[in-house]
Amino acid sequence: MAQQREVCIACIQMEPVIGAKDANIAKSLALVGAAADRGAQLAVLPELCDSGYVFETKEEAFALAEEVTRGKAVRAWQDIAAERSLFVVAGVNERDGDTIYNTAVVIGPAGLAGIFRKVHLWDRENLFFSPGNLGFPVFDTPFGRLATFICYDGWFSESYRCCRLQEADIICIPTNWVPMPGQPDNTLAMANILVMAGAHANSVIVAAADRVGTERGQPFLGQSLIVNHMGWPVAGPASRDAEEILLATLDLAGARAGRQLNEHNDLLQNRRPGMYGAMLRPGMSV
Amino acid sequence: MAQQREVCIACIQMEPVIGAKDANIAKSLALVGAAADRGAQLAVLPELCDSGYVFETKEEAFALAEEVTRGKAVRAWQDIAAERSLFVVAGVNERDGDTIYNTAVVIGPAGLAGIFRKVHLWDRENLFFSPGNLGFPVFDTPFGRLATFICYDGWFSESYRCCRLQEADIICIPTNWVPMPGQPDNTLAMANILVMAGAHANSVIVAAADRVGTERGQPFLGQSLIVNHMGWPVAGPASRDAEEILLATLDLAGARAGRQLNEHNDLLQNRRPGMYGAMLRPGMSV
Repeated sequence: MAQQREVCIACIQMEPVIGAKDANIAKSLALVGAAADRGAQLAVLPELCDSGYVFETKEEAFALAEEVTRGKAVRAWQDIAAERSLFVVAGVNERDGDTIYNTAVVIGPAGLAGIFRKVHLWDRENLFFSPGNLGFPVFDTPFGRLATFICYDGWFSESYRCCRLQEADIICIPTNWVPMPGQPDNTLAMANILVMAGAHANSVIVAAADRVGTERGQPFLGQSLIVNHMGWPVAGPASRDAEEILLATLDLAGARAGRQLNEHNDLLQNRRPGMYGAMLRPGMSV
Repeated sequence: MAQQREVCIACIQMEPVIGAKDANIAKSLALVGAAADRGAQLAVLPELCDSGYVFETKEEAFALAEEVTRGKAVRAWQDIAAERSLFVVAGVNERDGDTIYNTAVVIGPAGLAGIFRKVHLWDRENLFFSPGNLGFPVFDTPFGRLATFICYDGWFSESYRCCRLQEADIICIPTNWVPMPGQPDNTLAMANILVMAGAHANSVIVAAADRVGTERGQPFLGQSLIVNHMGWPVAGPASRDAEEILLATLDLAGARAGRQLNEHNDLLQNRRPGMYGAMLRPGMSV
């Protein structure tokens, strides 16, 4: 596939309302449209941006889910991706038969490229969703190889590694970040620090789109950000409470070359799996 | 082994002088003694703090190396560890026959507990040192399980994982951090961000002791730090250019419990190796 040298990425920080699926979809379309107006070629939406997050029961979560092959959220994003000729990565409450997943869809101008199902479920998500069963797929796009994972997946360095070892150039993170205890004043949120470290240590561009607002007592962090392959923010962190669009143009050619840190060091080739036996203890095998 | 609930850790930020081995050892002893006076039970010294770092030739590096069973640096640290009844983790230029390693020694009041040899060699180190061949050993101490790795090892999330999956409570990082390109003003050094992320994502205490100064044109970062198991600094980052001692008392019992983030999430048990197949591609196996 032809490879662009640059890509304009938008992270859309928005506030979904629990249960208000039609309104959430409409808001996401308006924001994706505004990002496209500003030149975005890839727009990232938050986790579960169609349904909201803090479900009270499995029944409530299930009633808000949709099949990705014919659901109204995915269809709406397919339409705007085709009309505006861009890619959309969005968190969606996915139903597959009697099972629901916390899913990210990857949609291009030609339609649904594929899905990722959240591998590491956070807190009460375990009561509603089944854990992801698709690993970490990576998709070819005109601007390179694109991967996606969701929120708590980013607490696992293996998520970054699995994407990068499949030569992902960009990782999109739809997320609903919640506060971590003990954060000192005037420090970056740990969610941001994990993104910066993951990008730097893997030489990969990362775009994380968070939600804002408080839902049924649960506050969310905002602070969406886009970092370059060195891990430095090029847009954001966004505010803690406002809906907004982060936009940045990323140097893909530079990012691809960036894993070569100097004459002697390639960040990925320097891995020494033969020394990582401790990761292979019984019950711990990778 | 009896387990203390707290431990007082010192990170010693110092400036070794290339080739001035006796003076470097003397300075390290003075600083370890000062840390012991302030209550330190574990003192961490920088990478290659006996020999200096920027060697011009393999011969120069080799001439400054010592066998850990009888070298003068290790003997000196053994003496002070016994006298002051503390643990010392220090970077040493290790000779083993015709081979030299960039090594960290773990020394307790009873003598040498063991060694770690740097697994991931940085830049021109590859011209002088052999890569570590001991994996990531973890040592029992009165204050819990202690691991160590060195500088660029911290760029590999596998280093943290290998230590933590062997139930390390504390990771000591002797280091000689160099600047990473592109750092914006008023941002933490990426070396600090990697420590914070590694500690948080593994629920492990981390103490990183860096050197300062410029040696043969190579500047070093300083900015040593001690972080708790949530990844938040409890001492440092230290200055960019001064020799100093960071001291902090860490809550070991809290750290051990901290991997349980909520009723549903244990940071280590939540790993899903069955989903990490991408880490097992040919030539990439863990």
